[in-house]
Amino acid sequence: MTLVRQPTRAGVRDAAAKIAAILPPSPLFVAEIRGIPVAFKAECLQPIGAFKLRGAWHRLTAIDGDLREKGVVAFSSGNHAQGIAWAAKRLGMPATIVMPADAPKSKRDGTLALGAEVVDYDRMTESREKIAAHLAHARGAVLVPSFDDPWIIEGQGSAGIEAAAQMAALGLGAPRRVAVPCGGGGLSAGIALGLPDAAITVAEPEGWDDMRRSLEAGWIEPVGDNPPPTACDALQTIRVSPLTFDVLSRRGVNGVAVSEAAIRAAQRWAAEKLQLVVEPGGAVALAAVLTGQVALEEGMLVILSGGNVDMEAYGTVLARGD
Amino acid sequence: MTLVRQPTRAGVRDAAAKIAAILPPSPLFVAEIRGIPVAFKAECLQPIGAFKLRGAWHRLTAIDGDLREKGVVAFSSGNHAQGIAWAAKRLGMPATIVMPADAPKSKRDGTLALGAEVVDYDRMTESREKIAAHLAHARGAVLVPSFDDPWIIEGQGSAGIEAAAQMAALGLGAPRRVAVPCGGGGLSAGIALGLPDAAITVAEPEGWDDMRRSLEAGWIEPVGDNPPPTACDALQTIRVSPLTFDVLSRRGVNGVAVSEAAIRAAQRWAAEKLQLVVEPGGAVALAAVLTGQVALEEGMLVILSGGNVDMEAYGTVLARGD
Repeated sequence: MTLVRQPTRAGVRDAAAKIAAILPPSPLFVAEIRGIPVAFKAECLQPIGAFKLRGAWHRLTAIDGDLREKGVVAFSSGNHAQGIAWAAKRLGMPATIVMPADAPKSKRDGTLALGAEVVDYDRMTESREKIAAHLAHARGAVLVPSFDDPWIIEGQGSAGIEAAAQMAALGLGAPRRVAVPCGGGGLSAGIALGLPDAAITVAEPEGWDDMRRSLEAGWIEPVGDNPPPTACDALQTIRVSPLTFDVLSRRGVNGVAVSEAAIRAAQRWAAEKLQLVVEPGGAVALAAVLTGQVALEEGMLVILSGGNVDMEAYGTVLARGD
Repeated sequence: MTLVRQPTRAGVRDAAAKIAAILPPSPLFVAEIRGIPVAFKAECLQPIGAFKLRGAWHRLTAIDGDLREKGVVAFSSGNHAQGIAWAAKRLGMPATIVMPADAPKSKRDGTLALGAEVVDYDRMTESREKIAAHLAHARGAVLVPSFDDPWIIEGQGSAGIEAAAQMAALGLGAPRRVAVPCGGGGLSAGIALGLPDAAITVAEPEGWDDMRRSLEAGWIEPVGDNPPPTACDALQTIRVSPLTFDVLSRRGVNGVAVSEAAIRAAQRWAAEKLQLVVEPGGAVALAAVLTGQVALEEGMLVILSGGNVDMEAYGTVLARGD
């Protein structure tokens, strides 16, 4: 059995300090829902349009000097790809990203624009894990998973520490409940570690709510066979990781599953009330709050985790109003 | 001849201090266009979705105690309305807004939600100026114009002072050129006063470029008969004011007219690259930069002045991609 380092609260605080040294905090906005002020952490306004540069920066800066020149390899449908490419560019490291051929164009273009090499694979017939592992081995590069990694989890958690400081500065007090989008659980586990006094609710699209089911069961359950289509390209994770599951399970985190219609309504709400472009996977926690699946209380914090949309699909969602 | 107080640089600095006391700076983002870093002042992220609360706050706080209880009256198609309503609510003053019956729903709803009384008029057959003047006279209330007022101009100019401080903090140096959307010229005149060392370019939709023509002519020229349709509801000003024109003319400001297609492309660019919802009138300065009508240079600052869109029209613009 391999001993895996566990992510820690100290690690999240260390990541928050490292990220504060290179990036201003992403904006935090306050708007009322049913008369209760709610804080929104706008990770969609990060330079790459998503929170993923946090974990990438914490992970890549932890790679020792000699190994850095061999670079990093990652597999991702988009936001993790851009996070890795962004951090690698800043550190002068080569980055290779294995992406599905049908990844959203904005995410692919963003990854290429950051200087990464993109290797395509077919979602239906090829294993991105195998391709990435092979590439990493051949090049002596470090393989960076998108959530199953203690540094990645700690890095993502810096968003919670940042938001708590911003809420305190606005006189809103400490976050009492945080609603977080969940794919593999890196962001939510990091925030759970960084904010030990807040209740955490993770939100997933219906049919892809394997973290919710896993937390209820007490062990990891994968997504079922033939999951329904979802607009949340960023949250299509088949199986969460013991690292993320254990953190959330120990904290008694609960999960909610939101409908595709509720996600579209949340995207429209964010555009109309906050003037923010939020991608489907970035809007699931907001959707859970708007539908009432998460009870509103003072000290509510909602993470808007990303805003990299396919423009034609996004425009159609805004225009058609269903 | 009535002596009118002229807006001053000292007034802009005073307004900036008053606004900094109640609002955090609106976010400033940096993105590259043709390889040049450009700063974007995201006034679309203000609590009312536009810069107009700046002038409203500076003006309303200048109303003497006894007069405050009689309230304020304004006429506006939307963003000025919300700015006045926001400032009046915060000061406990009654606010009455004369709005065209066809104003965008988001702007009307926002004004009502802030507790203002809305009085409708028909753009084609009624004079909003007369209705508003009559209401103000009958109630003993103060009439607050949307740009033809020294406090309003000074208040809007605080956006420039704020942006300059943010650019300095990011190591970008002082703004050397500012591209600003222009309706009546309140925002651009205020910024010209607040940033005396920056070159200013005002942007207007084609056919509504009366400020551009006025600056070239050396005297105020109104919009021509039967101006073309434009999506920029916020910039449909028939005639600019001597107050705004004089400030811009003395500074040698130039104007550019942008096409409706360029405005739509700018809205899409802002959504894709900055994850920001920008309304048509808020995107004209960005449009002028993207088309190359404003030459790019280091120290470029672009004002994104508002983000209150009609969602169906906006979604259609994003989706259709022309």
